[in-house]
Formats: sequence, C-alpha cells, structure tokens
Amino acid sequence: MRSAIRNTEIIREDEAVLPVVSREVQYSFSVYEALRIINGHVVHLDDHLRRLAASCRDISLVHGFSDDDIQSSLERLIEKDSIKDATARIFIVGGPSPLLFITYADLLSYPDSYYTDGIDVTLYEGERFMPQAKTSNLLMQYIALEEARKKGAFEALLVNRKGEVLEGTRSNFYALSGSKLYTAGDESVLSGVTRISVLKAAEELGLEVIYTPPLASSLSSYDSLFISSTSMAALPVRKVDGIDMDRKQWPIIRKIKDMVRAWE
Amino acid sequence: MRSAIRNTEIIREDEAVLPVVSREVQYSFSVYEALRIINGHVVHLDDHLRRLAASCRDISLVHGFSDDDIQSSLERLIEKDSIKDATARIFIVGGPSPLLFITYADLLSYPDSYYTDGIDVTLYEGERFMPQAKTSNLLMQYIALEEARKKGAFEALLVNRKGEVLEGTRSNFYALSGSKLYTAGDESVLSGVTRISVLKAAEELGLEVIYTPPLASSLSSYDSLFISSTSMAALPVRKVDGIDMDRKQWPIIRKIKDMVRAWE
Repeated sequence: MRSAIRNTEIIREDEAVLPVVSREVQYSFSVYEALRIINGHVVHLDDHLRRLAASCRDISLVHGFSDDDIQSSLERLIEKDSIKDATARIFIVGGPSPLLFITYADLLSYPDSYYTDGIDVTLYEGERFMPQAKTSNLLMQYIALEEARKKGAFEALLVNRKGEVLEGTRSNFYALSGSKLYTAGDESVLSGVTRISVLKAAEELGLEVIYTPPLASSLSSYDSLFISSTSMAALPVRKVDGIDMDRKQWPIIRKIKDMVRAWE
Repeated sequence: MRSAIRNTEIIREDEAVLPVVSREVQYSFSVYEALRIINGHVVHLDDHLRRLAASCRDISLVHGFSDDDIQSSLERLIEKDSIKDATARIFIVGGPSPLLFITYADLLSYPDSYYTDGIDVTLYEGERFMPQAKTSNLLMQYIALEEARKKGAFEALLVNRKGEVLEGTRSNFYALSGSKLYTAGDESVLSGVTRISVLKAAEELGLEVIYTPPLASSLSSYDSLFISSTSMAALPVRKVDGIDMDRKQWPIIRKIKDMVRAWE
C-alpha cells in the first residue's frame, strides 16, 4: 500500500481520511494543488506553494503548515515510497484544527494521439465562485465534465453570462489568431501554474498575448484553440460541441507544449 | 462514543470518514440533509427523503440506497444509542462506489432571546450554483457566514446580481408587508422543509404569499423580516447590516413559529 502524509507525518494511504462530522469537511472549506513528480523531482513546487497560499488567503483559510513543512513532507513521502513519476496532491482543510494531506497516484498523462489529433470539448454555461482560488467546491466542474464525457468529449469549457469562454473544468483556455493569443484575464480564471509557462512560451515565440476571453459564438473564426494544465501541458482542440475548429496553428501549439515540458 | 451509519451498517462515529483520494470527495460530489430527532421521533422524514432524492436528481448523483434503507438505518441508530433529541445528518457521496453516512449531534437549538429580541443579519453578494440542490458545495455559505459572525451577526443573507435577497446561508428568508408575505420563488432557492410549514402557516393566518424576493435596497420598508430553517423554525430579524428593521409584525412571526413547531 502507498504511503501518504497527514500533518507532516507519514501514514498509510488508507489512513488519509476526513471526518464526516467536521463542519469544514461538510462545507468543503478546503484548498488543494495537483503537482507532477518526474524522476523523483517535484515540478514547479514554488509556483504551486505560492498558489496554495493565495488560495488560502482568498478564502481566509488559516493553517499552521509552512512551505518548508509541506516541502519536507513531500520529500519524505517521495523517499519513503521511492516515487519516480507520479501526480501528487496537497490538500488542506481549514477550521479550528486544520488538516494537511499529501497523497499521490500514477502520473496522469495522455496518449500521443491527443497531441497529434487534438481533443474534443463541449461548452457549459456556468461561473465559478472565487475563480482564482483552487478549492474543493468543484461540483460545477464535476457536472460539466460528466456531461462532456457523455457526449464523448474530453473537456468542458465554462462560458460566463457574457458568452465569454474563460477556462476548462481542469484547464486554461487559449485562442490563436495570426500572431495574437487570446485568453481570459488573470482576475477571472484560475492562475494555472502551466498557464505561466504557456504565456512565457507564447511570448518567446513572438506571439502577442491579449487578455480578452474569446466569445463562445466566435470560436470557429480563430486559427486554432488549445487548453493547458499541469498534466496536459498544451492540447489542441479539434472540435467544440461537435463542430470542427481550424488547425492552422497546431504546429505553434506543439512548440508551446514542447517548451512547457522542457521547462519542467 | 456515539455510533453512526455507513452504508446501512452501524459503525463508531470515528469510523465515519471519507477517503481523501476519492475523486468524488475531492470534487464535493455529495448531497445531505439535516433533520431533527425529537423524543426519538424523526421530524418530517418523508419531506427530507423527498428533497434528498431531488438533490440527487439535480446533480445526477446515482446511489443504491432506498428510502427504506435510509429510514431503517436511521431507526437502528436511534435505537442503538437510545437517542432522544438530536440533529441528525444524512450524507451521500456519489461516484462508482457511493457512500451513505448518518451521523448525529446534540440538538441544535437557540436561546429564547433569539425569538423575543430577534437576530442580526448581514448581506452578502453571491449566487448559489444549482440553488435547489442541497450539496456540499458550501464554500460561499461558509465564507458569508464567517464574515457575518465577525460583525457580530447571526446569519448572512445572499443577494443576487439583481439586488434581490433570496435566502440565508442556512435559512430561507421572508418579508411581511400588511397582509402579504414576500419570498423568493421555489426555483431560485433551496426548497426548505421548514419553508413548506412556514408558507402553510402563513396561509392559515390569512396572509397572501407572493413569490417575489424583496430587494436588498428596500428591506427597511417592510413591516417585518424573518428567516426559517429546520433548527430555527422562524426567527425575526432585528437588524440588517446594523440598521434597525421594523418590528410591527413580530407577533405574527411568533405565531408562525409556534405553528411550525406544533406540526413537528
């Protein structure tokens, strides 16, 4: 059985449990981060810890675990189970007795065909509460993704009341048009750790980043669309709600993906 | 130690736990009900079971626990621990292996002064996702209530983008004006089990129920305001954001409260 961390101590994975009677568990008053461990090395740990702290600040979740506590716990877990490649999850529940858990699973990765053939997405009308905080209030994302999967799609993109496509249920979203890359402003979406790399890669490739979210009604007018996340890096979008999108700039998306992975 | 129920089996309360690695736990894909047990009798169990089923339907949560399973589990728990008065909680997590828990705590009740002197509330701008479903996605409610408590208030009322006061974080909301009772329509708020009794009592008292939510900007123009919930029955509102409200119809609110409790 795998090991895990509870409050900086090593435990068995099946001991990583939450009490049903805890008010904070009942109210989903918790934050998390999902990280890649590659060859025993935690990718972009500082960025993840920074975002974790920002999520806590946003929802006023106070806990006593320092960045050093979390980092050393994670390192201890990697050593204990001789972890090479994995997707790890840091999870903190707030309240009078905050709980820290670190668990891990097989490295989440996708077939090469997703990168060469693209993936299909659906649109879902819904707005996140506190979009910049990475919390466990993910019911909308769960439902939107289930609906997408029922239609054979890989991801659902969330559309706000203005008809703007802001982000996916577990990804950030971008549209390319000529030398311009369009994406929602930082204030309205989750500040993805991989998004930072994507935008840096785009600039290095000479693209101008424009913080205006694409409209759902005009997606087929762009040269190409893609999504990003820690697990995906950058994945080109083939179809939106069953409609073929342009593939003109897929080579650029491939370059962005390679740069994102190279910076790990 | 108290007992609890997991999947219709009696367990110790400290065994009522959720695995951190479950995707449904991580996404808060779960529903719940809070019920009163008075003198060993479960109050309005049928209404609660009906709403639980409605919540599951709303979010497409499929589980194999029948109403009979839940009712007989609850009865077994009451017998096992010789429960007289308590607040019980039914909690179901969805996914490939759904989990049912029933736990209980001391009966949640409020001092008489809350009913005679009223309670203070604050306003919080925010809209619930899927307002009719009673799910664990309660982060907004948690944050709104924390802010209210910091200001010395008892409850926060949620105000939508139109400036309408729809409901509290754990209560329904009403405004009285002459012989009229104003409250949000069923489609935009949680269909409170006690709300059903409140509206029935209002009609028996000759009040006309108008399904139009009061505007936040005009609360002081009403004769009286109150909130309701399973634990509160009906509580008069003394102040909103520090401003005194009219108390003209508090005797009516008291009558409604007595009728709601008499129907238990």
